[in-house]
Amino acid sequence: MIQIKRLSSTNAGFDETLAKLLAFESAQDAKVSATVSDILADIKKRGDEALLEYTRRFDRLKAASALELELPQSRLQQALQSLPADQRNALENAAQRVRAYHQKQLAQSWSYVEPDGTLLGQKVTPLDRVGLYVPGGKASYPSSVLMNAIPAKAAGVSELIMVTPASNGETNDLVLAAAAICEVDRVFTIGGAQAVGALAYGTQAVPQVDKIVGPGNAYVAAAKRSVFGIVGIDMLAGPSEILVICDGRTNPDWIAMDLFSQAEHDEMAQAILLSPDARFIEEVAASIARQLEAMPRKAVIRASLENRAALIQVRDLDEACAIANRIAPEHLELSVEQPEKWVEKIRHAGAIFLGRYTSEALGDYCAGPNHVLPTSRTARFSSPLGVYDFQKRSSIIQVSEQGSAKLGEIASILAHGEGLQAHAMSAEYRYKKTITSSDA
Amino acid sequence: MIQIKRLSSTNAGFDETLAKLLAFESAQDAKVSATVSDILADIKKRGDEALLEYTRRFDRLKAASALELELPQSRLQQALQSLPADQRNALENAAQRVRAYHQKQLAQSWSYVEPDGTLLGQKVTPLDRVGLYVPGGKASYPSSVLMNAIPAKAAGVSELIMVTPASNGETNDLVLAAAAICEVDRVFTIGGAQAVGALAYGTQAVPQVDKIVGPGNAYVAAAKRSVFGIVGIDMLAGPSEILVICDGRTNPDWIAMDLFSQAEHDEMAQAILLSPDARFIEEVAASIARQLEAMPRKAVIRASLENRAALIQVRDLDEACAIANRIAPEHLELSVEQPEKWVEKIRHAGAIFLGRYTSEALGDYCAGPNHVLPTSRTARFSSPLGVYDFQKRSSIIQVSEQGSAKLGEIASILAHGEGLQAHAMSAEYRYKKTITSSDA
Repeated sequence: MIQIKRLSSTNAGFDETLAKLLAFESAQDAKVSATVSDILADIKKRGDEALLEYTRRFDRLKAASALELELPQSRLQQALQSLPADQRNALENAAQRVRAYHQKQLAQSWSYVEPDGTLLGQKVTPLDRVGLYVPGGKASYPSSVLMNAIPAKAAGVSELIMVTPASNGETNDLVLAAAAICEVDRVFTIGGAQAVGALAYGTQAVPQVDKIVGPGNAYVAAAKRSVFGIVGIDMLAGPSEILVICDGRTNPDWIAMDLFSQAEHDEMAQAILLSPDARFIEEVAASIARQLEAMPRKAVIRASLENRAALIQVRDLDEACAIANRIAPEHLELSVEQPEKWVEKIRHAGAIFLGRYTSEALGDYCAGPNHVLPTSRTARFSSPLGVYDFQKRSSIIQVSEQGSAKLGEIASILAHGEGLQAHAMSAEYRYKKTITSSDA
Repeated sequence: MIQIKRLSSTNAGFDETLAKLLAFESAQDAKVSATVSDILADIKKRGDEALLEYTRRFDRLKAASALELELPQSRLQQALQSLPADQRNALENAAQRVRAYHQKQLAQSWSYVEPDGTLLGQKVTPLDRVGLYVPGGKASYPSSVLMNAIPAKAAGVSELIMVTPASNGETNDLVLAAAAICEVDRVFTIGGAQAVGALAYGTQAVPQVDKIVGPGNAYVAAAKRSVFGIVGIDMLAGPSEILVICDGRTNPDWIAMDLFSQAEHDEMAQAILLSPDARFIEEVAASIARQLEAMPRKAVIRASLENRAALIQVRDLDEACAIANRIAPEHLELSVEQPEKWVEKIRHAGAIFLGRYTSEALGDYCAGPNHVLPTSRTARFSSPLGVYDFQKRSSIIQVSEQGSAKLGEIASILAHGEGLQAHAMSAEYRYKKTITSSDA
């Protein structure tokens, strides 16, 4: 038997119990930090030489020189050609859908002119060069290549550099094929903190990038946190989460499997069901028990559900939405009648899946929106990965001669109020022409 | 005499010299980190009690209880009433202009429906509650209140909490008046790492926020870095920078004063001039020497210019733009003929000031765009503070029954390819109706 927490929102102490259930501190291991900081310093100092040494040691990769760490484009094309037709079609279809969705996120520059001729605006520019980290081994997901590379390319990033470790020289054809489909510009078979360091500082073989995105293990995450500021980074992801709100009228096997689909990621993943229907909760619990044994990843699913899952009875769907806003889940399924009515009440979630036919897995692969989403309640203040993460803005200010008098007087008063006289004078020079030593 | 570096882009080793000039590492002091980490842990554990103790100790504030740490709205109104008319008008005019500009940054939710009825979109939601840190003492700037509070309010943030230390009980009327103008909801006279901790964890008196913005000293910066993930934070700012590109035809006194206006911020601020005109560079140098002695903040200006400034002769304006992109400055003045032509070549800058009449100081106070800008070359990958920092997005996915078959097949193939069978089955359940134990 599998033991899953049962809660009810009417229980005394429910708020505290829920807070405890959600608590997750991504412990920053001091030993990991120290190792990472040594590796980064070494890459910064010795470049390719250090990169080769770490790659030989950690990935047991035989490479005579740093130049051999780069895969030629022909290798990516070869991987694409080698795929079975159904896999290739699926990848290409998914890529096309993800591209179509993300193109709608493109921000445009804008400006406006005031009556006195002063022009104000915002110029939007893509990042020049982006690094994409793709983990090796079991967590090497082609879908992750699509979700990270496509928004970058849609933004107009001119050079996308992928790094992925090749333990013992082994690469993943699905990952390389995905890179080919996304038109990744260069691929290096490097990984770990040393790959993050190479991208952040640049070496002779690996060009310096402006931002590093993509998931990774504790060493990769620590390295990204450490180089933040030298380069941009995406979010530091916690374990995956799903919250299902169900009115009790979806097939319980479907809901049980949706919970499994998060739980199978890892032992710390979190799957929670909210329903006002006590009988339905029992049906889902029974379905979980019945279906679990047949799942290939049943050990991970069991551990995850026993560690962090909960089946929660709520008063009604209104209360379910209020609790969802407190949880601010990465994935939220509204498996209810008229989901478009209930979604109005949701303020905090990474992605919202409406209706009984929208399983969360569709969003992981091919619906179109990104599967890189805020975890651990960070949906309260952050967004899915998107084109906006690969564009940035510059303010545009062109003050007319007439405008410089009006604005200059305001600036002068405020600058004097702050004790910044050079600020005041540089504004005054533009309109108090008498002060100037010559005409401008 | 003041000694400012002179460089020429034609000199041997110019690239390395420039790289060295720009290098700025914001050292993370281990002692500061340890102190901050103790304070944060203490606030988290003991809440108001700890907050009161630290505030009494560090700010010498006499408060009988944590409730006394909050200022009533009447105190803000009183500060506003007490201002001289010109200061009040200047603040209100600036606020109105900053508001008008930022309202143009508001993102809207969007969605589209595919032929099979599947709906995809993005829902934009403001953050619920934001904390705004305003430093005390000399760096207590009312303009900073406007620049941080207005985008938050424009985004629709429902509760804006300001914290500002009141050493010995002293508050700054200009700052409180700015808070009144921006309709800040609550103000607490607390500061330092303890204020950041109170906002991040919440105490009985201080509500927990979703994001913390605003400048602060090394302790505040370290505390923000540490609580990042529990709450959102804005950027961690380095010293202020200005880069002026001039064709040699702007009044040299104006340009000298523009360089002063960054230099007067602090000894580590950076002011650089690029010009193809050697004679003009000499005129600016002479103007700097001539004007410096009259500046009230001449000691700071001198230190900053001698530490980190440079007057650089370039081959032409094309090269000047290329160098500007390498520098990726916080502020860039294009003090040239036809600046609208040259701005096309600029990819990386926080704010761009076009034309001889647009002194950078106008942007600091009242032009409209934000004065919180990316420093230390981070304009390569980040943007001015804006409304977008106070809104976040949720993906919306509503797959139709018909769509669930088409998408389900793609998802199933890709999920099996990644070894995630529960993902595959949860997609398959929606279209392989025969598997289900009952109708959904």
